[in-house]
Amino acid sequence: MSNGTGHYEKRLSDLAGLYADQTAFAALLAEGDRVVYDVTEFRPSEKAGDVIFGVTRMSPGRIGDEFFLTRGHIHAKSDRPEIYYGQKGTGLMQLESPDGETRIVEIGPQTICYVPPYWIHRSVNIGDEDLVMVFCYPADSGQDYGIIERSGGMRHRVVAVDDGWTLTDNTSYV
Amino acid sequence: MSNGTGHYEKRLSDLAGLYADQTAFAALLAEGDRVVYDVTEFRPSEKAGDVIFGVTRMSPGRIGDEFFLTRGHIHAKSDRPEIYYGQKGTGLMQLESPDGETRIVEIGPQTICYVPPYWIHRSVNIGDEDLVMVFCYPADSGQDYGIIERSGGMRHRVVAVDDGWTLTDNTSYV
Ligand SMILES: [Mn+2]
Ligand SMILES: [Mn+2]
Repeated sequence: MSNGTGHYEKRLSDLAGLYADQTAFAALLAEGDRVVYDVTEFRPSEKAGDVIFGVTRMSPGRIGDEFFLTRGHIHAKSDRPEIYYGQKGTGLMQLESPDGETRIVEIGPQTICYVPPYWIHRSVNIGDEDLVMVFCYPADSGQDYGIIERSGGMRHRVVAVDDGWTLTDNTSYV
Repeated sequence: MSNGTGHYEKRLSDLAGLYADQTAFAALLAEGDRVVYDVTEFRPSEKAGDVIFGVTRMSPGRIGDEFFLTRGHIHAKSDRPEIYYGQKGTGLMQLESPDGETRIVEIGPQTICYVPPYWIHRSVNIGDEDLVMVFCYPADSGQDYGIIERSGGMRHRVVAVDDGWTLTDNTSYV
């Protein structure tokens, strides 16, 4: 992205505790603290009525039978939505409503995914190549990661199966 | 775009009156009322705090020494901004401030263009291929095309020169 205002990376060590298979996590981390995803954004302001836009790129990979994924969050102003738009690769948006309903939106190039107000959201790279998406959200949204930490993650886990992926219960969820 | 909620096209006849060279316009129109640009959008609502996202594609072309371009508008809620992000091709965003200052942002793949609150904006395809951009703006922005019509267009025209483009005064501007 040219004309962006910021960039950050998340490494494997930043994602400690997210995955069920802690042995596989430790083994992969021992190979090196690789970048799992990075975000380049354009953030004109954080005022109501303004908009933040960015590009996120996530590497392909697995930890046990789980795919590389983002930590997941809800917006600090929880009624603020978000729009994702696929650019490259194949991913999922894992969405969880305030009353615990899970929805999965498959995202490929040119796919729109709308994150409705109040829904927790996380992206998952289920492909063999980088997952690249653009996103935009109201500039006053903010992010709250604590809701995920307090509940032991999201209600379900996306896990790899022979022909793709399926959902299982997250046994750490409280 | 998959999962979009709407689509529209603008044809040459919809752009009557925008161009200085009316003879060239009439000659091109006589060849057929071609689609000049189309927009596919995702519009979850028109409420404050929501966001509209879309993809716009504009054909390459010229009318006299002017490039194919959009009509231009200001937002009905004029303090609402917009973000464009280049996908394919080469274009310009022509921006005009409330006191008549013109700014031009060149847009190629992965270029961000921010349209600040209160600025009139129009996109121009200066290349030989389709110009494709994504855009997003606050869902309550609205569009006002009358400001352009009342003033005889924008203050400047983008015109082709040997090595690219330049700005000239729009003699219809009042
Ligand atoms: Mn978000
Ligand atoms: Mn606009």
